[in-house]
Amino acid sequence: MSSQVQRPGLLFVLSGPSGAGKGTVCKALLQREREMKLSVSVTTRAPREGEREGVNYFFRSVEQFKAMIEADELLEWAKVYENYYGTPKTFVAEQLAAGYDVFLEIDIQGALQVKRRFPDGVFLFLIPPSAAELQSRILGRGTETDDSFRLRFGAAREELQMMREYNYVIVNDQVDRAVSRILSIMEAEHCRVKRNLYLLNEW
Amino acid sequence: MSSQVQRPGLLFVLSGPSGAGKGTVCKALLQREREMKLSVSVTTRAPREGEREGVNYFFRSVEQFKAMIEADELLEWAKVYENYYGTPKTFVAEQLAAGYDVFLEIDIQGALQVKRRFPDGVFLFLIPPSAAELQSRILGRGTETDDSFRLRFGAAREELQMMREYNYVIVNDQVDRAVSRILSIMEAEHCRVKRNLYLLNEW
Repeated sequence: MSSQVQRPGLLFVLSGPSGAGKGTVCKALLQREREMKLSVSVTTRAPREGEREGVNYFFRSVEQFKAMIEADELLEWAKVYENYYGTPKTFVAEQLAAGYDVFLEIDIQGALQVKRRFPDGVFLFLIPPSAAELQSRILGRGTETDDSFRLRFGAAREELQMMREYNYVIVNDQVDRAVSRILSIMEAEHCRVKRNLYLLNEW
Repeated sequence: MSSQVQRPGLLFVLSGPSGAGKGTVCKALLQREREMKLSVSVTTRAPREGEREGVNYFFRSVEQFKAMIEADELLEWAKVYENYYGTPKTFVAEQLAAGYDVFLEIDIQGALQVKRRFPDGVFLFLIPPSAAELQSRILGRGTETDDSFRLRFGAAREELQMMREYNYVIVNDQVDRAVSRILSIMEAEHCRVKRNLYLLNEW
């Protein structure tokens, strides 16, 4: 990616309905754009074999996590079963200040929390190429009953309406094309006038 | 460029201060993105050797041109010495409807006229990498007196302030990098949510 002079980092948030392929796209993206930083979450769950503090997660106690919520130190957080997960502001802020773009892959509810706390982020919505394709992706897993299919498919269609809350929509017809679109968006966002007004001071 | 499904064409307007290198960048861009259409201007000046109607220009009489102004058929126009030049709406509209992106290279005053008449266009502002570089580009032509240099340099600095009226600013540090940025912006703009709301109807 060709970068303009002196550019500060930007936060990109990738989200989308279930079945869109967020995880796959995010992994492929990281391989093509090695200079960006993936956001590291904080969690109260125990580390698994091989997981490293500050790389996979920041591991904290429930008390510490609750203190972070109180101190407004999280861009978003959620409780999943017994464990808390969240996105620490400090990590993101430090990477941005150092000039790195930060990438955050997260579900729709989390993305909307981030948007409220960090409106200057760039919000990307990944969607499957069509209803028919989503249907075959869900069925392809081979684990769905008729009822659970209807539930998942209905939920994905509802989630799709959340598109309006985002800046960009990326159709995931092919992973490499979706990744190219995201890279283009990242470069384009750095060129937006509102992010380059400081150039006027240099003349 | 990887295109999303069913995309309609967009109008991109490239402009910028004198000395930014608009012509060079535009030529290099056309060689890398052959699917886009360059806007064809209408003029009252006589065709030169080898110029073809509808390719280089639409050649019209002064009476015809004035009738186009009256009928609001131009996105912008200007009189340069004895000749009129303008951008016909119909040509642009036809290309967009056929799904082509249209690219228009034009001076700042012209771009601002287009923006009033076609706010859905994407407005790109090309600038030299620095004041020092602009200075050496102007002096490099070797035809400037001290006075004319000061005039041109001062005008370019003033024109730079017009950046705020645009959507994107592209630093022309190297032609191929400026072209890459423009191609990224073109792809990103096609992914903007506001241009893809029709996708919601397909679900």
